[in-house]
Amino acid sequence: MAGSTFGEIFRISTWGESHGKGLGVVVDGCPAGIELCEEDIQKFLDRRKPGQSQFATQRSEDDAVEIMSGIFEGKTTGTPISMIVYNKTQRSSDYSEISNYYRPGHADYTFDKKYGFRDYRGGGRSSGRETIGRVAAGAIAIKILESLNITVTAYAKSIGNIEIDYENFSMVDARSNPFSMPDKEAAEKVAEYAKQKMSDKDSIGGIIECVVKNMIPGIGEPVFEKLDANLAKAIMSIGAVKGFEIGDGFEAAKVTGLINNDHFRCDTDGNVSKESNHAGGVLGGISDGTDIIFRAAVKPTPSIAAIQSTIDRQGDNIEVSIKGRHDPIIVPRAVVVVEAMAAISLVDMIFIGMTSKIDDIVDFFNRKE
Amino acid sequence: MAGSTFGEIFRISTWGESHGKGLGVVVDGCPAGIELCEEDIQKFLDRRKPGQSQFATQRSEDDAVEIMSGIFEGKTTGTPISMIVYNKTQRSSDYSEISNYYRPGHADYTFDKKYGFRDYRGGGRSSGRETIGRVAAGAIAIKILESLNITVTAYAKSIGNIEIDYENFSMVDARSNPFSMPDKEAAEKVAEYAKQKMSDKDSIGGIIECVVKNMIPGIGEPVFEKLDANLAKAIMSIGAVKGFEIGDGFEAAKVTGLINNDHFRCDTDGNVSKESNHAGGVLGGISDGTDIIFRAAVKPTPSIAAIQSTIDRQGDNIEVSIKGRHDPIIVPRAVVVVEAMAAISLVDMIFIGMTSKIDDIVDFFNRKE
Amino acid sequence: MAGSTFGEIFRISTWGESHGKGLGVVVDGCPAGIELCEEDIQKFLDRRKPGQSQFATQRSEDDAVEIMSGIFEGKTTGTPISMIVYNKTQRSSDYSEISNYYRPGHADYTFDKKYGFRDYRGGGRSSGRETIGRVAAGAIAIKILESLNITVTAYAKSIGNIEIDYENFSMVDARSNPFSMPDKEAAEKVAEYAKQKMSDKDSIGGIIECVVKNMIPGIGEPVFEKLDANLAKAIMSIGAVKGFEIGDGFEAAKVTGLINNDHFRCDTDGNVSKESNHAGGVLGGISDGTDIIFRAAVKPTPSIAAIQSTIDRQGDNIEVSIKGRHDPIIVPRAVVVVEAMAAISLVDMIFIGMTSKIDDIVDFFNRKE
Amino acid sequence: MAGSTFGEIFRISTWGESHGKGLGVVVDGCPAGIELCEEDIQKFLDRRKPGQSQFATQRSEDDAVEIMSGIFEGKTTGTPISMIVYNKTQRSSDYSEISNYYRPGHADYTFDKKYGFRDYRGGGRSSGRETIGRVAAGAIAIKILESLNITVTAYAKSIGNIEIDYENFSMVDARSNPFSMPDKEAAEKVAEYAKQKMSDKDSIGGIIECVVKNMIPGIGEPVFEKLDANLAKAIMSIGAVKGFEIGDGFEAAKVTGLINNDHFRCDTDGNVSKESNHAGGVLGGISDGTDIIFRAAVKPTPSIAAIQSTIDRQGDNIEVSIKGRHDPIIVPRAVVVVEAMAAISLVDMIFIGMTSKIDDIVDFFNRKE
Repeated sequence: MAGSTFGEIFRISTWGESHGKGLGVVVDGCPAGIELCEEDIQKFLDRRKPGQSQFATQRSEDDAVEIMSGIFEGKTTGTPISMIVYNKTQRSSDYSEISNYYRPGHADYTFDKKYGFRDYRGGGRSSGRETIGRVAAGAIAIKILESLNITVTAYAKSIGNIEIDYENFSMVDARSNPFSMPDKEAAEKVAEYAKQKMSDKDSIGGIIECVVKNMIPGIGEPVFEKLDANLAKAIMSIGAVKGFEIGDGFEAAKVTGLINNDHFRCDTDGNVSKESNHAGGVLGGISDGTDIIFRAAVKPTPSIAAIQSTIDRQGDNIEVSIKGRHDPIIVPRAVVVVEAMAAISLVDMIFIGMTSKIDDIVDFFNRKE
Repeated sequence: MAGSTFGEIFRISTWGESHGKGLGVVVDGCPAGIELCEEDIQKFLDRRKPGQSQFATQRSEDDAVEIMSGIFEGKTTGTPISMIVYNKTQRSSDYSEISNYYRPGHADYTFDKKYGFRDYRGGGRSSGRETIGRVAAGAIAIKILESLNITVTAYAKSIGNIEIDYENFSMVDARSNPFSMPDKEAAEKVAEYAKQKMSDKDSIGGIIECVVKNMIPGIGEPVFEKLDANLAKAIMSIGAVKGFEIGDGFEAAKVTGLINNDHFRCDTDGNVSKESNHAGGVLGGISDGTDIIFRAAVKPTPSIAAIQSTIDRQGDNIEVSIKGRHDPIIVPRAVVVVEAMAAISLVDMIFIGMTSKIDDIVDFFNRKE
Repeated sequence: MAGSTFGEIFRISTWGESHGKGLGVVVDGCPAGIELCEEDIQKFLDRRKPGQSQFATQRSEDDAVEIMSGIFEGKTTGTPISMIVYNKTQRSSDYSEISNYYRPGHADYTFDKKYGFRDYRGGGRSSGRETIGRVAAGAIAIKILESLNITVTAYAKSIGNIEIDYENFSMVDARSNPFSMPDKEAAEKVAEYAKQKMSDKDSIGGIIECVVKNMIPGIGEPVFEKLDANLAKAIMSIGAVKGFEIGDGFEAAKVTGLINNDHFRCDTDGNVSKESNHAGGVLGGISDGTDIIFRAAVKPTPSIAAIQSTIDRQGDNIEVSIKGRHDPIIVPRAVVVVEAMAAISLVDMIFIGMTSKIDDIVDFFNRKE
Repeated sequence: MAGSTFGEIFRISTWGESHGKGLGVVVDGCPAGIELCEEDIQKFLDRRKPGQSQFATQRSEDDAVEIMSGIFEGKTTGTPISMIVYNKTQRSSDYSEISNYYRPGHADYTFDKKYGFRDYRGGGRSSGRETIGRVAAGAIAIKILESLNITVTAYAKSIGNIEIDYENFSMVDARSNPFSMPDKEAAEKVAEYAKQKMSDKDSIGGIIECVVKNMIPGIGEPVFEKLDANLAKAIMSIGAVKGFEIGDGFEAAKVTGLINNDHFRCDTDGNVSKESNHAGGVLGGISDGTDIIFRAAVKPTPSIAAIQSTIDRQGDNIEVSIKGRHDPIIVPRAVVVVEAMAAISLVDMIFIGMTSKIDDIVDFFNRKE
């Protein structure tokens, strides 16, 4: 129940504050024998790194990961993998001002209510930098999924009111534009919109969609540890995420059963498929073998330079303008965090899914002899 | 990780199938000294009971709860509370037909993939009757919340495309109409729409909104056991729920920071409030003391009498029409399940929240001496 | 953390008090496909049943188990298995006297300190009847172990000061004498000793030894979820158990490394064995494939008819003589409880052990396709 | 269930191998507001440091701890506390020899069986250095207990066959002699014995006793999360511990109820005490407010220079003599590890104990307003 641990069998424990000595994660329950080096982790961390476009914070952060344990001769040993990213630039002085008031849309007020005080430097533990540990752990989870041929791909489905269709999809485009949006034309519209809002000292939100391909069927533990319930928790635990939906999600609530039900069919080779995938790859909380598709609603960055009213710790009503270098839009950098959390949740569920049938278990141990 | 357990400190374990001997729940970690009798539970079970209107299944189910343990002289003892509802009508013969094929939109196929076979009678464990254990446990959680002055109220926010405003709210209306919709006019429109879809042998979905009033601030454990992440898992674990959002949810993704940020203010008595509540009562995963507001998207009932194509266990493509007495719309009966799961999640989070500050802990034990 | 749940993947939740309506257990995470009927459970419950000899309480308890869920067509479905034993004889009047004082060696005082009051009838939740749920769940765990060819056998190693050698072992004798002691001669000595202590209105303790044969090597999760650490918790959670040791246990603390180290050897067929088993089948918290041997120290029954001094709830010093039908020696009936808890712990550890190596995991899913 | 995590509310995750870059721990769920600096941790690490006498390994290890997160302005913030000890001397070449064979009494064989291979340098994860993380986390737990006036003190109760009485106790002596034995005379006998066994290239075991004073009554969660069951797991998870007993432990199994029952008494001030403490401070798994006393059996160090037979990875029977600098007796250095694990377990149980009574919970939140 301790708050910075996620997962039961494949379990991660993250730590670190925005302006502390560093941030990191301990990955416990990782199977032995996976080839793993720092570059495997670094390439994912680089995707969440700031300063990569004019639409992201211009802070320069290196975020070089160091693996401290759990690897021997290039492979995971089955023991905990500890990873650290040291904080290079800790200019705490930037933040002395916000120590005394509660930024709207931030966790300043609630941290004070809960803990009595807070590390106010750069948001402390509630900073977006907290996701470094998630992404580092997620890189390992994604490696495990890859060994099972499962891929996890997230991208910006919409930013502001600019939305793309699943059909126009080009992941090459997504990786090459600063919005992680797999539709060149839409991305250009977003650039226009973003520039305007930046000049207004305002910020933008958006929706991230994630597709899991080649998912193993039969994964998920009814009735509480359903695959989608676990994914929901994993994704909703990401800062700034205010909603989660799987398949048609909230749209499903508006249509009728005749429209929403996916019909099974079987081809001549005996392969089972569905004529549609309104369910998003999950039935009764268990994967059905089709693509898992879910979306996360990301709120606009709360840190804006425009003037806002709020209160200080003494209870005085004041007006503030948040200084510092902030992302006008968090969606593009959050894409890899969504992939990471989805992968971590899936690995945990897949592992537990190995014990569903006694025959499979007996067979597993008989073959090991 | 076992699938039918929810919660860590306040923990429930549900069991039972639609057509087995009964269904029930064990509530572990319930504090001692709460006045509790079967009537306290029964009134919540009665709200989920079928057959209460022409828009619900006409199956007659008594669903009388029996408390088996954990109560002595009218009070909880701190030991597990076991509750049972016996199944009265177990006409398994009704279901012999569906044993051999996979109903679209149901968990038949995924249960077979996961477990190798399934109890097909009435959906077995994936039946809506599984929620009996949740509601019985939720009744206790709600009692605990009441002792802390916290209330949890859910209702139909929309059914099909008919949606109500938060402002037109009358819970008296909600309890008196068959749709749990706190707006008489809207409820009448829904009745028209429902009648039409029933004559089409089709079904309807909707959105349930839930409001938690007088919530204690400072509850929620960043970064993974955030209050909203836990609620999301609790609610997404309910069958037929395809989406969860808190506060403005998916709408927040479309607006800008200037619109979405809630400004704090302090009145002359020193009470802190927010000028708006786009966040839904949670900042950084911790309650801020304002109303917690979240919504759940409920898909249309998958059991419909209209003809659908699907496959049987042998892999043949067939056409089916689901027989039996099914709810054309599950939303009204799911309202109390949403309240139950929210309450269970909140109690667990509130209990863990007692250990946030060392001074509070020391004070707690000093006063007990 | 809720106290009446044990296990993570294979998880049991017990409930019930000595004089409530009944006692039971929910077994969650049991794999699908295991043949299981009430007789499989009943034969284990019968072994813990009282009234089987003059050396056990003469209470007559039927303790007939009823399986409420999780079985379909004679097999486990993978969903929770709920089992109930109704209490037949609830003569609460017998216990009105003890409601007001604290029996020495019992949990009366601590329950009052913890919960504010207690169900005093027959010890309530702290009664030995609480083990009914453990034994019922253990019967299923033992079935799972049997399918992996693993056997768990416990017996009385010593009663009072009468101790037997591992060599004189005859389980046929153990099952046929009232002390579960696999040495006829020793059992006769115990009978003499027990008669004497019963006439003194006194009670006796003893040591239970348990041997797990054909254990899978490589099971146990360092560094905290070691196989022996888990077994220790499982066994120490049984009422009246005051000590746990594995292999040579406390004797190992007195000898030197040269004596205590077990030497590996390899025969011409490539089979690895050890020349001795001082370790008790566990090295570094992981099973080594040899017999797991552990012991539990069981204190003498605290309920004795001899006069003892104690206090009442008002704080007056008083003298009492515990009335009612109590076991003068709990060891024989606890033997099956030790087997049950060991089996439950082992199944949980074996299941988690399936995820130790990535190659085994990949192979598992590849073969399922 | 992941193996390197311990505790539910107060949760630690340790990581690191003997010859990796370092070792450490993440402490999650630590309350905010505790004054904490590196010196608070270091003094406990110094007690487990090797090279402090001729009877300990002469390796020189600095083991300087660095706190990476969770502290702000000298106080815990409620967020995870990450602590690291870098490994200074990583002469892996020393260990090339043991990479190919299985040392008797070590986890080499079982690690290979479980994970397929192992980090053989200095024992890797199964090295005694793994306890660094435990001791660092334990230092924080002990601080929390101190704020509740609870003290945890362990010492060598016996080494080889030299045993001391509880009465001759002088903790001043214990801290000043190399055996942590609070009886000067006995410690001198141990020195003689140890010198002899060292010259025999042999090693010695012993028994550690631990006393918890001023324990809060009412702590412990029947029936599985009993205080003693949790302590047993915590202590048995320490490498080399082969047995655990509470109160009279295995001796209790030999006596009768009349001897073993502790009689309550109440003095004129209304204070409840017991005339004896055979139970070791726990009744029915719940603390009774008297001293908690338990013992751990520590086996002789398996690494000895004397010649032993074993097998290599190819299955050949060979003879070996373990080289390197090893403790001839691990007991003195394990004393602080026992204190650490006991404290961690107790803090977790005390926190959960805050939710036993509804009145206490309501009172807690009412007072916070």
